[in-house]
Amino acid sequence: MTLRLADIVQSLAARVDAELLGNPDILIERLSTLDGAGPRDLTFLSHPKYLGKLAQSAAACVVVSPAVREAAMRRGACIVADDPYHYFALITQLWKQRHFPPPAPHIHPSAFIDPGATLAPGVSIGAFACIGAGAMIGAGVRIAEHCVIGAQVEIGADTRLSARVTVADGCRMGERCIVHPGAVIGADGFGFAPHEGEWVKIEQLGAVHIGNDVEIGANTCIDRGALQDTVLEDGVKLDNLVQIGHNVRVGKHTAMAGCAGVAGSATIGAHCTVGGGAIVLGHLRLADHVHVSAASVVTRSILKPGQYTGLFPIDDNAAWEKNAATLKQLHSLRERLKLTEKSLSQILEKS
Amino acid sequence: MTLRLADIVQSLAARVDAELLGNPDILIERLSTLDGAGPRDLTFLSHPKYLGKLAQSAAACVVVSPAVREAAMRRGACIVADDPYHYFALITQLWKQRHFPPPAPHIHPSAFIDPGATLAPGVSIGAFACIGAGAMIGAGVRIAEHCVIGAQVEIGADTRLSARVTVADGCRMGERCIVHPGAVIGADGFGFAPHEGEWVKIEQLGAVHIGNDVEIGANTCIDRGALQDTVLEDGVKLDNLVQIGHNVRVGKHTAMAGCAGVAGSATIGAHCTVGGGAIVLGHLRLADHVHVSAASVVTRSILKPGQYTGLFPIDDNAAWEKNAATLKQLHSLRERLKLTEKSLSQILEKS
Amino acid sequence: MTLRLADIVQSLAARVDAELLGNPDILIERLSTLDGAGPRDLTFLSHPKYLGKLAQSAAACVVVSPAVREAAMRRGACIVADDPYHYFALITQLWKQRHFPPPAPHIHPSAFIDPGATLAPGVSIGAFACIGAGAMIGAGVRIAEHCVIGAQVEIGADTRLSARVTVADGCRMGERCIVHPGAVIGADGFGFAPHEGEWVKIEQLGAVHIGNDVEIGANTCIDRGALQDTVLEDGVKLDNLVQIGHNVRVGKHTAMAGCAGVAGSATIGAHCTVGGGAIVLGHLRLADHVHVSAASVVTRSILKPGQYTGLFPIDDNAAWEKNAATLKQLHSLRERLKLTEKSLSQILEKS
Repeated sequence: MTLRLADIVQSLAARVDAELLGNPDILIERLSTLDGAGPRDLTFLSHPKYLGKLAQSAAACVVVSPAVREAAMRRGACIVADDPYHYFALITQLWKQRHFPPPAPHIHPSAFIDPGATLAPGVSIGAFACIGAGAMIGAGVRIAEHCVIGAQVEIGADTRLSARVTVADGCRMGERCIVHPGAVIGADGFGFAPHEGEWVKIEQLGAVHIGNDVEIGANTCIDRGALQDTVLEDGVKLDNLVQIGHNVRVGKHTAMAGCAGVAGSATIGAHCTVGGGAIVLGHLRLADHVHVSAASVVTRSILKPGQYTGLFPIDDNAAWEKNAATLKQLHSLRERLKLTEKSLSQILEKS
Repeated sequence: MTLRLADIVQSLAARVDAELLGNPDILIERLSTLDGAGPRDLTFLSHPKYLGKLAQSAAACVVVSPAVREAAMRRGACIVADDPYHYFALITQLWKQRHFPPPAPHIHPSAFIDPGATLAPGVSIGAFACIGAGAMIGAGVRIAEHCVIGAQVEIGADTRLSARVTVADGCRMGERCIVHPGAVIGADGFGFAPHEGEWVKIEQLGAVHIGNDVEIGANTCIDRGALQDTVLEDGVKLDNLVQIGHNVRVGKHTAMAGCAGVAGSATIGAHCTVGGGAIVLGHLRLADHVHVSAASVVTRSILKPGQYTGLFPIDDNAAWEKNAATLKQLHSLRERLKLTEKSLSQILEKS
Repeated sequence: MTLRLADIVQSLAARVDAELLGNPDILIERLSTLDGAGPRDLTFLSHPKYLGKLAQSAAACVVVSPAVREAAMRRGACIVADDPYHYFALITQLWKQRHFPPPAPHIHPSAFIDPGATLAPGVSIGAFACIGAGAMIGAGVRIAEHCVIGAQVEIGADTRLSARVTVADGCRMGERCIVHPGAVIGADGFGFAPHEGEWVKIEQLGAVHIGNDVEIGANTCIDRGALQDTVLEDGVKLDNLVQIGHNVRVGKHTAMAGCAGVAGSATIGAHCTVGGGAIVLGHLRLADHVHVSAASVVTRSILKPGQYTGLFPIDDNAAWEKNAATLKQLHSLRERLKLTEKSLSQILEKS
């Protein structure tokens, strides 16, 4: 499995301008990191801080930015593109397409498809998948083995569901989405009315509405809304094991890393990032372009773009224990400092 | 799909007293939030702080408490009930029942049911579900597509398992439970004896015992006990992606929000709440009515009811960095403050 | 189901030396904890701090260390072994083997096995499992119901996959591994190039490579590498709901508790432990024998063995609120303390 350098640049020419310097006939056998690249590998240099590694790289070709053009040329073949990381991303897509092309559309005979479901042309359905009554499956959709698609679900064209994805009744998903194994879309939100010491279930009557180009990680859960829909807008990317509570709205092109959780009725803006294991509490609002650091807990609405953090710095255990114990006296330390300052100023006044 | 106001109140009359004021023939088309309610919607006002929104609401009818009776009557139709949120919860149940009644019991021909399993009358089993030898499935139980029920499992009457639920060998579940997709009940607990730098597996010989009216969220995991059973008592509610370790016992009507984790052999009391992403360490004991805030880590037993919290307050990143760095010197700051106080008192004594 | 004491000791004699004191014909009916053991139970005493409980134990037999030999003999039957906890672990294995022996190898007729897959002798495959083209399944492998094994997957001898495990195309797993329900091995890593406000997918062209004797918990996710493989070395143990990002390498015999997360390209050493809910950020390096406490966040590489912790100590909510609020002024408190110290030293110099 190889790709010729000139073919790569030509295949992507419609999307990005790039200049190929060096022998266009070099055959690339592998895509690789700058450090790990061998003499038949293509790699990229995205950040000037790695410039020192460029000269030593054994790579057959390096994708670089215009700023590095001269240095890269001296080393050997290179592709010059304004955004090398983006360009390399497109190369990975080309690589996948060429070497792992999707099989021809096929509906596995073991799949259970309700006669009331509608399948557009070019749909693939894997072994043992179930498609519910009234489901509308768009053109070119690929549903892998063991998916369970509920009644009245809508899935837009060219969306791909990996094995063992559940989409519950009435949920809608846009085009070109990718959903990884074990994801659960549309389970009941966690809604109960406390009553005489018990929890009375509030039936979750909304659904989930997912836009176009959304990617959802393995075993991630997106709950259906209580009364209205839970919404993920276009281009949202969720990593694995993420929890999205009922009635949440996540704005366009917001990304959340693994194990993040958003509690019910929170509204997250567009172009936000939520780090791994971070939590956004319920009913809060995050403006566009808010970035929450990993493992931080958002306990109030954040209306101003920026980076926000709240985590206890890790330390060797002995040092942590001392500081953590002292932390419990922090407020009283402040009071003592105040008193000290006051005494001191009285002394200074007198002297 | 509509419900007549008088029918709603009458249907619930056996469970809760309520007074309908206004035209009893109004047809409700949707249940809605107070903010979002349109002229054919039913909504509720549970908290006096939203009273200001009542007058402006376009809702066809609002469920209110007796304290708000007069104000609500002036606006239009209303239902007066002691606990409007609870009453609304019951309406959602009625709505679901009327508009999405469960289909007639049906055993899908593709399901694999071991001849040694016992199915009570009225059981539904979905496509490709597997029921193991010796399993006892109670009356009216609904097991959705792709569930895997192990050998000797017992499931009480009217319990509902959504798609892709696993219940491992020998686990028992009570009546009227609800389990959401991807939940795993009865996987091995995480038990190993360290030996010469390796981990030697301790076979997990207990099971999981779940009471009545328990709800378990999507992709939540409840491990089987090492020697005795892991136990969830009646009325426990677990959200999605919750982890319950082996030998844990969770008391009646305790609720845990998404991504919470309870390590092995912890004992949680009744009527507790555990916030999203909170963690309870192993072998601890929480009394009844303990409330753990989101993302807090319980590192010692808590024997007194109350609200407990431990999380680093979020801040803009620059402020956090300063405070977090200083935090590592907190213990030495305290020592310096002590010295300062001492010097100061010596000065004051002299003067 | 019983085991005779002498049979237990003899069955394990090839692996561990142990001395049986007391009646060798006692029949054990149950394995139990020291506290809970009844007169037909076998239990163990691993830690001298529980010595006080030994005399009162009703157990039929206790596994003890040589240091406790005399005290244990006075009480009744005992097994003396150098490492009682390890010995007891082996007894649990024996118990499981004897009382729950795996059924004879069987390939369920409903399983879908691609004709291009290769199955070694003694393979078991459960109902509705799917095995992809080119997969190589080793001798004695047991694949439970509803597993989805991708194309070109390799699974080593005697590995056991519980129900509903997904192993994506091209991933490799060693011998004697155990994988619990819902685990996802080889979903795409979370890789995107930001471009003009959107996220451009970087296809994940690596796979997952898992060594021998690895155990993977329920609903745990291990992402495939972007360019190279994600690697779990021999003897790694992962609990439930753990997230391992792309390109991560986890060293031999490292164990991670539930809900832990390791972000992309982190390298974890051998013999490490990561506590429940702890997070290791991307691209970091942890040396061998690093122990991360529960819920701690590793934000920098740790190159020295030891125990590391970072979590906000839990407190009653009112106390926490005071200290958390003060924490936001911590840096300025330090500055005030500095000024105070300075003023004080000036006063002292003058006097």
